[in-house]
Amino acid sequence: MIKRTKMLAGLLAGVAALTMTSPVAAQSEPDTAREAAFDASVSSEDQLVWMKDMASAPHHVGSPKGRANAEATLALFKQWGWDARIETFDVLFPTPISTTVEMITPERVVLGGQEPAVADDPTSADLSKALPPYVAYQGDGDVTGDLVYVNYGMPDDYAALARRGIDVKGKIVIARYGGGWRGLKPKLAQDHGAIGCIIYSDPKDDGYGQGDVYPEGGARPPAAVQRGSVLDMAIHPGDPLTPGRGAVPGAKRLDRAAAATILKIPALPMSYGDAQKLLAQLTGPVAPEKWRGGLPITYHIGGGGGVSVHLAVKSNWALTPVHNVIAKLPGAQMPDQWVVRGNHRDAWVFGASDPLSGHSAMLSEAKALGALWQQGWRPKRTIVYASWDGEEEGLLGSTEWAEAHADELRKKAVVYLNTDSNGRGFLYAAGSPSYQHLVNSVSAAVTDPQTGVSASKRMRGQLLAEAFEDQGGSNKRAIDAAEAGADLPISPLGSGSDYAAFVHHLGVPSLNVGFGGEDESGGVYHSAYDSFHHMTTFDDPGLKYGAALSKVVGRMVLRITDADLPVTRYGDFATAMGAYLGEVKTLAGNRRERDRKREKLMADGAFRLASDPLKPVGAPAVVQRTPFIEFAALEEAVDRLRESASAFDQALSDRGASLDPARRAKLSVQLRDIDQLLLDERGLPERPWYKNLAYAPGRFTGYGSKTLPGVREAIEERRFADANEYTERTAKVLTDYAARLDLARATVEGR
Amino acid sequence: MIKRTKMLAGLLAGVAALTMTSPVAAQSEPDTAREAAFDASVSSEDQLVWMKDMASAPHHVGSPKGRANAEATLALFKQWGWDARIETFDVLFPTPISTTVEMITPERVVLGGQEPAVADDPTSADLSKALPPYVAYQGDGDVTGDLVYVNYGMPDDYAALARRGIDVKGKIVIARYGGGWRGLKPKLAQDHGAIGCIIYSDPKDDGYGQGDVYPEGGARPPAAVQRGSVLDMAIHPGDPLTPGRGAVPGAKRLDRAAAATILKIPALPMSYGDAQKLLAQLTGPVAPEKWRGGLPITYHIGGGGGVSVHLAVKSNWALTPVHNVIAKLPGAQMPDQWVVRGNHRDAWVFGASDPLSGHSAMLSEAKALGALWQQGWRPKRTIVYASWDGEEEGLLGSTEWAEAHADELRKKAVVYLNTDSNGRGFLYAAGSPSYQHLVNSVSAAVTDPQTGVSASKRMRGQLLAEAFEDQGGSNKRAIDAAEAGADLPISPLGSGSDYAAFVHHLGVPSLNVGFGGEDESGGVYHSAYDSFHHMTTFDDPGLKYGAALSKVVGRMVLRITDADLPVTRYGDFATAMGAYLGEVKTLAGNRRERDRKREKLMADGAFRLASDPLKPVGAPAVVQRTPFIEFAALEEAVDRLRESASAFDQALSDRGASLDPARRAKLSVQLRDIDQLLLDERGLPERPWYKNLAYAPGRFTGYGSKTLPGVREAIEERRFADANEYTERTAKVLTDYAARLDLARATVEGR
Repeated sequence: MIKRTKMLAGLLAGVAALTMTSPVAAQSEPDTAREAAFDASVSSEDQLVWMKDMASAPHHVGSPKGRANAEATLALFKQWGWDARIETFDVLFPTPISTTVEMITPERVVLGGQEPAVADDPTSADLSKALPPYVAYQGDGDVTGDLVYVNYGMPDDYAALARRGIDVKGKIVIARYGGGWRGLKPKLAQDHGAIGCIIYSDPKDDGYGQGDVYPEGGARPPAAVQRGSVLDMAIHPGDPLTPGRGAVPGAKRLDRAAAATILKIPALPMSYGDAQKLLAQLTGPVAPEKWRGGLPITYHIGGGGGVSVHLAVKSNWALTPVHNVIAKLPGAQMPDQWVVRGNHRDAWVFGASDPLSGHSAMLSEAKALGALWQQGWRPKRTIVYASWDGEEEGLLGSTEWAEAHADELRKKAVVYLNTDSNGRGFLYAAGSPSYQHLVNSVSAAVTDPQTGVSASKRMRGQLLAEAFEDQGGSNKRAIDAAEAGADLPISPLGSGSDYAAFVHHLGVPSLNVGFGGEDESGGVYHSAYDSFHHMTTFDDPGLKYGAALSKVVGRMVLRITDADLPVTRYGDFATAMGAYLGEVKTLAGNRRERDRKREKLMADGAFRLASDPLKPVGAPAVVQRTPFIEFAALEEAVDRLRESASAFDQALSDRGASLDPARRAKLSVQLRDIDQLLLDERGLPERPWYKNLAYAPGRFTGYGSKTLPGVREAIEERRFADANEYTERTAKVLTDYAARLDLARATVEGR
Repeated sequence: MIKRTKMLAGLLAGVAALTMTSPVAAQSEPDTAREAAFDASVSSEDQLVWMKDMASAPHHVGSPKGRANAEATLALFKQWGWDARIETFDVLFPTPISTTVEMITPERVVLGGQEPAVADDPTSADLSKALPPYVAYQGDGDVTGDLVYVNYGMPDDYAALARRGIDVKGKIVIARYGGGWRGLKPKLAQDHGAIGCIIYSDPKDDGYGQGDVYPEGGARPPAAVQRGSVLDMAIHPGDPLTPGRGAVPGAKRLDRAAAATILKIPALPMSYGDAQKLLAQLTGPVAPEKWRGGLPITYHIGGGGGVSVHLAVKSNWALTPVHNVIAKLPGAQMPDQWVVRGNHRDAWVFGASDPLSGHSAMLSEAKALGALWQQGWRPKRTIVYASWDGEEEGLLGSTEWAEAHADELRKKAVVYLNTDSNGRGFLYAAGSPSYQHLVNSVSAAVTDPQTGVSASKRMRGQLLAEAFEDQGGSNKRAIDAAEAGADLPISPLGSGSDYAAFVHHLGVPSLNVGFGGEDESGGVYHSAYDSFHHMTTFDDPGLKYGAALSKVVGRMVLRITDADLPVTRYGDFATAMGAYLGEVKTLAGNRRERDRKREKLMADGAFRLASDPLKPVGAPAVVQRTPFIEFAALEEAVDRLRESASAFDQALSDRGASLDPARRAKLSVQLRDIDQLLLDERGLPERPWYKNLAYAPGRFTGYGSKTLPGVREAIEERRFADANEYTERTAKVLTDYAARLDLARATVEGR
């Protein structure tokens, strides 16, 4: 589901301290012969066949092809020897009965409707069974109003509007895609009093400004529209009617009107071909420089009554089945330790890139693991593969499954490994920092299809070359690690794909990996042109990177499943937490300093003097100065965590190889659920579903991760009481984590 | 002539150290009553009358209206009591006989020609006497070739092309305006083997990407073309046939073929309406992200033979008279000390903004000084006002005059004060750092027309507010000074207006000042739409800022002319030199570090690994690692300069008020020509006309200043032997400067 516009960013944590090098733990050596046998069963040709079939018709939630793909996936798993079944949930899934968007004044122009066929792309020729362009979980309505351009529609944009004296109350906003998660745009518009919201794809961001448009190139053509979900996933993902519990038959369901995650105003997405017709008519102040996109017009903000728009959406709000395919290979030694791995299968339309590029890679893994099983291999732990449905609408399939199986997962889940769209380019990885070394070692073992060096080496080369070209680079911690030849840090997880319920709600450590950065899937993201033709022409010809992804994730599964000793490194976890704490302290200090400067400048009238009287921009809003935050308890906790982690890693390195099986088993149990200690059952402020205090998707970023979110977002949002409360709470969970590491160390040391 | 796209940048030196606060010298207090009397004669209404008349017809060099404007200016000066005359030089000035630019393949499209009339702009209705769009001093020719897009056509752009395996040899390049001086584009194209050059105005840079286009707004309309000079002014400005000497009748003249500053390949400017027709047809690699402009196309580099262009220019290379109007008010006490002040009068077409906005302000000053004279005031020093001709073509009028009067100027010139285009907004100033305090004190004494605070206060507010909004700001030295309430640093001088010969060739300290930043003159710069209508609608309605400029420069003239004690502060000069040296050392260190990194990355194959195999970008060129540079002598000299300057300023502050007239006179003589000590008669490498070792226009920036240029450019261009030689030479001139200050201090101290 997630669109990675800057692929490599996924790999790199946005943190500033140098990676602490963990002692080399005496972990199980990878079984290279088994991995070679695994690789032998991975085939790009297989993936082409599966992708071509599954992408041959629209296969969104509730569609016949969606059901057929579930059955086909089930059949494949069974054929390969897995214990597989379809597990179905009934979720609220709105589909449009009618969508209307038209300019009323200065002239009547009807806009919107289904995307047209594109030459060279056979599946685009028949869109009769495709969902029309719309955004799911907007609020149905029929409104007419004055149009205002709000740039990306993010909080900063509304602050800029306020300084120009422009209000969106009672108006319809038009926002461009980008700058933050789609769903925040109508939500913030609604919060600011707007009555409707249009979201369009600007050609600067993914159209001709990025490259030749489809079908000549891979970039977004003028009539392509990005569908998507606008479910308020900052509150919780999954079925809006069953928050926190599985949407099983007979589950207690909310009334739709009571569902917190459904928006109240109508919203529709739009192509840039259509958007130009509206934006070209706007008058009023010229948009600030950073707001200007790639259309051949002067971008104005509007809001002066010149352009009136009629926007109406009417949906069928039906309970619809989502079909997850769940397949298992039982563990021979530790059947109650589950290694869970998933990729969604549902698409907005044909979804060759999103999600079938990742789903096909997962099928290759399943086939290869099945082959190993046939050859007599028995995994030590249980392997659970999941082909999720309903991801696009709000991580429905994975969330309902995780909620329905919450107790079992708490007791059994070791890790959750996720993939989604995949393409040509560089390996990226995000996830729980204790798995950082595993990611690094696996990426060093898989060959990049284009260059013949390891994925790790290519990624490091790219990171350093890009930093050189940019004269710096944006991620000092990663660059320093690359220059030192140390493990590269991995990014923290936000949201945007199926790991959310696992990591944020249940505390199951998770990883999200994929290749990308040289593909052009962004140009057709969530449009009818995300097709087999586009995928195999512009994104991963021959699906070479599909096979590479299978090899990466397959190694992760094998190494975790069969590990005798922990593959995790807690020094890396402690280093990451230390870096996040450093960032949050810097944030608080910078905010305070900036608040002080703002006060001084306002007192001196500097903003007034700087403003062009003919194009006036008012001073920023008056805000309370950021106070000093009580960081001591959190600093204490992070310090303790560092010590405990370092001591544990050292003990494991010194004595791990000589541990007897009973202690190994005890250690495995002690560490399996350690990340669940990061949860606070009360959750984050205003969103109790999110319980992990180490990371969360940002309330105002949507996909982007916020680390130490209870503290960080409280500072950002000026909830200073919350900030002080959450330094304490976060300190508590990190201290518990450290205490568990001490226990585990005692096991290693034979105490 | 110069286009200020970032007005405030002019004010702010690109340096990093905090301004040293000079002791408050016991300088003459300004005569506020006289300044008030001066102001009383300054009238925006006058300026409107003069501008409207002079901008009523094209008045380029050699035109009847150009001659008429010279006569009208002469008459005004005479009417106001000045000793005025016209001084004429005969310069080589090419005008087009024919210009041809057309696409040949993939289809024939004729482009170019005169700009069309624009509704609402009366002077645009008749362009029969206007020069057509062209660039002066290109090399005539008739060529047909494959087209290559080279972005701004600067050295970095050619490096980027080389890494993509694209050569311009035998081809025609199309470069967009911006990123460096116009004249560098055809010069660098020629140096890289191109046979022709087109320069176009991209709408992102000054067209609809900046605001509504003329006449609805002030930005560049699709058919507007920027004319200009492409004389190779990095070698020397002025008449190409008489380098270093005045182009008087009978002067020794080079053959045209021997003139170093005339290019060898044909070049023409182009509108974006025309350029789109060419650029849309280009194929080959997609242009790098930073190369992409505002046209609704995917920018490609071309060069693969797809687009063939025919470009032909034939010029009339005639000796043409330029008419400077030179007017004097004789000094009563120090007639042989000249305060010189100038603004050019010639334009590419109507030139309401460039140059008449500044020229009209200068006329107001002349009228006001004449009125003071009529009232009995007699200036202590001689005032020389100059209305220059031929600036647009290459600073012809001012350079020839300065060269012809070089000996006299060396003996008499105190300072040269320049203005050029002026508009609504913020005061900016560039110039010799010893005049920094004068600029600051004058800017505090003149009221900003729009806000009612002083120009200084508005400028400071803008500087600090902008730094706050940008979360930093680009000029730490200026921001620190503004926050401390200290004098703001002024920028060093590059080129682009008539001060060049004074400061760079003769060592006469110079200032260049003006208002701007809220005008929209950039949108019609050097086009037929730089008109009275545009100026009074979008740039400075009512010419309020014209009057403010008169008051700023008038105060400078009065305060320098009538000063009993130096208005200069040498501590500011020493601080600036110290900051420049710091920058140059940082530059050398950063370059060395970067060279080392590049070597490492190339050895590791990082650039190859980072490159998309389907869109390959090669490694950077191999270069010699920047060696350590011998900075000791220069550090010694700057340190000595700091001591001497500080001691002098202190002595003047302590004892200046009690100096007897004879010592004051002696001091005045000792300091009058002190900046001439900054000259090295051998000049800068490869361009001996530029003799000032403190500042020069950059060889590869054109307008942009390079401080300590002998050293800085040698490091940038990897002429490391030159770098070591010029640290010595620069040390020598600064040491001489310090010694002169020591002598002056002896005068102050009565020794």
